[in-house]
Amino acid sequence: MDVAERLSQLRIAMQEVGINWYLMITIDPHASEYISDYYKEREYFSGFTGSNGTLLIGMSECFLWTDGRYFVQAKNELEGTGIKLMKSMVFGVPDIAQYLEQHFQEGDIFGVNGALVSAEYGLKLERICEKCGVTLNDHPNIIDRIWKNRPGDSAEPATILPLSLAGQAVEDKIASIRKQMKKNETDCFVLSKLDDQMWLFNLRGNDIVCNPVAYSYTIVTMNEVCLYLKAKAVTEDVKAFALAHQIQLKEYENFYVELEQKKLGARIWIDQNNSNYRTLRILKGKGEIYDAPNPTAIGKAIKNECEIENLKEIYRLDSVELTKFLMWMEKVGIPNGISEVDAAKNLDHRRSTIPQYRDLSFPTISAFGANAAMMHYEATSKNHLNIKGNGIYLVDSGGQYDGGTTDVTRSVLCGEVNDTIKEHFTRTVMGMLRLQNAVFLKGCTGRNLDILAREPLWKILIDYKCGTGHGIGYMLNVHEDPQNISWHNRNGRLETPMEEGMLVSDEPGVYVEGSHGIRIENILLCVKKGESADGEFLAFVPLTYVPIDRKGIRPELMQPEDLLALNQYHQQVYDKISSSFQGSELEWLKNATAPI
Amino acid sequence: MDVAERLSQLRIAMQEVGINWYLMITIDPHASEYISDYYKEREYFSGFTGSNGTLLIGMSECFLWTDGRYFVQAKNELEGTGIKLMKSMVFGVPDIAQYLEQHFQEGDIFGVNGALVSAEYGLKLERICEKCGVTLNDHPNIIDRIWKNRPGDSAEPATILPLSLAGQAVEDKIASIRKQMKKNETDCFVLSKLDDQMWLFNLRGNDIVCNPVAYSYTIVTMNEVCLYLKAKAVTEDVKAFALAHQIQLKEYENFYVELEQKKLGARIWIDQNNSNYRTLRILKGKGEIYDAPNPTAIGKAIKNECEIENLKEIYRLDSVELTKFLMWMEKVGIPNGISEVDAAKNLDHRRSTIPQYRDLSFPTISAFGANAAMMHYEATSKNHLNIKGNGIYLVDSGGQYDGGTTDVTRSVLCGEVNDTIKEHFTRTVMGMLRLQNAVFLKGCTGRNLDILAREPLWKILIDYKCGTGHGIGYMLNVHEDPQNISWHNRNGRLETPMEEGMLVSDEPGVYVEGSHGIRIENILLCVKKGESADGEFLAFVPLTYVPIDRKGIRPELMQPEDLLALNQYHQQVYDKISSSFQGSELEWLKNATAPI
Repeated sequence: MDVAERLSQLRIAMQEVGINWYLMITIDPHASEYISDYYKEREYFSGFTGSNGTLLIGMSECFLWTDGRYFVQAKNELEGTGIKLMKSMVFGVPDIAQYLEQHFQEGDIFGVNGALVSAEYGLKLERICEKCGVTLNDHPNIIDRIWKNRPGDSAEPATILPLSLAGQAVEDKIASIRKQMKKNETDCFVLSKLDDQMWLFNLRGNDIVCNPVAYSYTIVTMNEVCLYLKAKAVTEDVKAFALAHQIQLKEYENFYVELEQKKLGARIWIDQNNSNYRTLRILKGKGEIYDAPNPTAIGKAIKNECEIENLKEIYRLDSVELTKFLMWMEKVGIPNGISEVDAAKNLDHRRSTIPQYRDLSFPTISAFGANAAMMHYEATSKNHLNIKGNGIYLVDSGGQYDGGTTDVTRSVLCGEVNDTIKEHFTRTVMGMLRLQNAVFLKGCTGRNLDILAREPLWKILIDYKCGTGHGIGYMLNVHEDPQNISWHNRNGRLETPMEEGMLVSDEPGVYVEGSHGIRIENILLCVKKGESADGEFLAFVPLTYVPIDRKGIRPELMQPEDLLALNQYHQQVYDKISSSFQGSELEWLKNATAPI
Repeated sequence: MDVAERLSQLRIAMQEVGINWYLMITIDPHASEYISDYYKEREYFSGFTGSNGTLLIGMSECFLWTDGRYFVQAKNELEGTGIKLMKSMVFGVPDIAQYLEQHFQEGDIFGVNGALVSAEYGLKLERICEKCGVTLNDHPNIIDRIWKNRPGDSAEPATILPLSLAGQAVEDKIASIRKQMKKNETDCFVLSKLDDQMWLFNLRGNDIVCNPVAYSYTIVTMNEVCLYLKAKAVTEDVKAFALAHQIQLKEYENFYVELEQKKLGARIWIDQNNSNYRTLRILKGKGEIYDAPNPTAIGKAIKNECEIENLKEIYRLDSVELTKFLMWMEKVGIPNGISEVDAAKNLDHRRSTIPQYRDLSFPTISAFGANAAMMHYEATSKNHLNIKGNGIYLVDSGGQYDGGTTDVTRSVLCGEVNDTIKEHFTRTVMGMLRLQNAVFLKGCTGRNLDILAREPLWKILIDYKCGTGHGIGYMLNVHEDPQNISWHNRNGRLETPMEEGMLVSDEPGVYVEGSHGIRIENILLCVKKGESADGEFLAFVPLTYVPIDRKGIRPELMQPEDLLALNQYHQQVYDKISSSFQGSELEWLKNATAPI
């Protein structure tokens, strides 16, 4: 069955249920960072395989919106399907909302799967429909009957974290949620975010690539806690744990039906920014909505003492393996012109030898030369460079371990690179270290701090087009809200101040298209610096202890403070990890961390 | 008539008009920075003379809220009046809103003068009244009949700026406002902010201390422009100007009545953050409100080429006079133990000799020793120090000129000061210079930049409890919205990105209670730095060219970049102002600006 036939069958199904528009967005019900194959409806019905695309099916026409990264690929993949490509953000091309407003006819029925639309976007669609006299139909799945060999919605056994890894009992966490519910006069809290649920229940899953989460929904009232899980996730251990902790286990597939039926009380807490449209729509029909960030978010972001202790050791072990990889690359890999793919494999293997290792925290980025200028490059067996000749090799990688999630980037010089590239390298390091050594008043958010990392590059009119840092989970997602380091002004969006115990990445970089890419990334732990008459001050300590390539440093561009910071950091690296090095390896480490 | 008697008469008047609560806030109808005596109702009815206070009069009890600066003074001044002091922000003391909620009885009538309440606060009072079943009565003046010798509501002749000073014709400005009105689909724009009106009409007044503004309101529709002015402001020149530019002059006192009657169209633009409650209340009854920053705000904030040229010369002249004052202080004033008051007089006199001088832009702050630790200290003939012995002398001052408004602070060492104070001085200078030399991507707001000025102080756990910088008017208010330099997170409030042509002050400081105060302030002009593949970059150039006391610098605490910045700035100071110095004065300047 080709795409045209799939679409024609879909249109028949649409007619049967009385829908004349249908919208497919690339998302799962929990807005996960990676989408499992089960949810790749848009790909199935369009043939377009890019990571971002929205498909609008009308009764006669069909459109696919995607962004500039995919214009060429989409054009090729859509050929012969009859689907028209709509280039997002291109002047003169309407966005989806504009297109709908222009083409809706009064009386139309507009169908979406409300579980596969964010609450925010669903509300926007509601407004457009209302304006145009169109009915919005949140229709459950009409896909299955057409998509015959649809992949399974992967679900694997969940595991329970022992207290020695979690550091805080589930009862304590639920009690603190209820305390906040009480404070905000809410009777019920509905949670859809997967990593928040994992944190709340000291549970881990394996349903999303690199993210140790299980598909789930949670309803907390003052009297009960209902956790909706897929059958496969519910092991005997999970059952026993739930029983012991008064958690009612429910079937994931019954969530919406039960949500409709359940008595939830007058005022319901839901984080609209982290829920899907169907959940919000049902709740709006049941009570007053209290829309605020999930009360689990801050609890999850502020690592507890046990988590911090575990993290320190895990980051040390992870730093040792990355350092040994960098040493091996210098001695063996690069002189032999190893491929980007083989380099990544080598590093991934080293991580897997750490006893606490569970998984990678994201696919390793192993990029040489111009490839490193692409922020999200992934080398494949078909498409990669060999690391030889002159240039920068960038490796961004991390692991999931019993005791923490890591993320670290280093860039190393291969062969000879010119002074401009070395200046880029030096200024990236300056920015990374200045943020790492910041001292700031409690209350500051990442918007206040970001410029410390960027200013050395801005001074030479260079900017990197991404945030400086993101939060990071504990045995959870490598990208974690709510704190971050970014200068961008998102008027109206809440910002989260940095707090003691939060983790944040510190990863400035330089990306020159077609030439080179540099990124240096440490993970920082926010700590208390001290108090004075003027308030409470915070600072960071690094968790990452991996040498920074001294060959890239032009010390004459640094201020003495920067050079001191680099030398002090290198001394710390040596102190933290040298016990895992011996003989000629120790000699190498000594040189790699020697003061400049 | 004493306060108790005034209150009792007020209660009689309240009963006559059927009001049983009355609230007086310290404000004028335009939320001006300084309140003229006419609007000091709260002072008249309470006897409390502090600058911040809110008086709530019930039928039997009366309360005054004020902040920590005034607890002692208020206690003394309220003695015998029967008014109870409510200490704002003190634990356990309800704020006004909480008090009202607790004590309102259903059916109460709550009176305010809606012109003397901000729109935002008025809406808050509305919500409380509604919740409590209380009627909010926006009652015009019931004060006059009791306050017999009420001071006149000062109004003075307004003047028209020639194009050589204003740089942009009124027609152009009105056309740009209408363009923005059209873009936002509004039919009418109602403006209450005084400095915005002065800017729009190239008009200046003299109704508020140090602020060259005239009491006014403006209504702009697509066909007409109505300007409400006090009779005294309307000179023959103003009449002729209005006639020539199709501006309808109206009487200030008739504004509310005419606003009620006038046809304004369906959608009305009003900046709720810069309007009073009565204006908003009337407009809400007339059409749909479009609440957004006044379209005049950005036009006023971005100085045009003519304004910038004039500013450069005015700042040069102002810098010359301040520098000569500092020289005189070093040679004559300080050795003779001059008083803070006489020092201020000397400086004020020097400014007044500049041909373009019109007025001070704010009362000169002339403070020695511990007095300088008080950010808003004003020396008086009764209460001041003589500048002798060891310590820091701080002088913060500015003028209103034909061609600009200035604001500048310098701190100078007298006698011997210890190394700690010198460290404070050095780090203040480092912060000032680092912000002055910032390079940043277009789109940044003051929240991104603030840390550059603060970080050298934060590193030693010192913070100053105010913003780093404010916008500044052109022949207008010394404090001007919307841009500023401040790290504080005001969730939900709009932030204004810095743009080419904006002015901002750069004034970090150290304030140690009972010991010393240091502040160094330059005014910066935002300029384009350059463009690259990564975007458009902005930077600052100083308008202020006054030596920084080299005796306060401990160069060993500075990075080479900081020292270079100081030496380069001093070289610029010399280059800009030395032509106004001769003989031994030139010698002094040469030394004062010599490299370290």
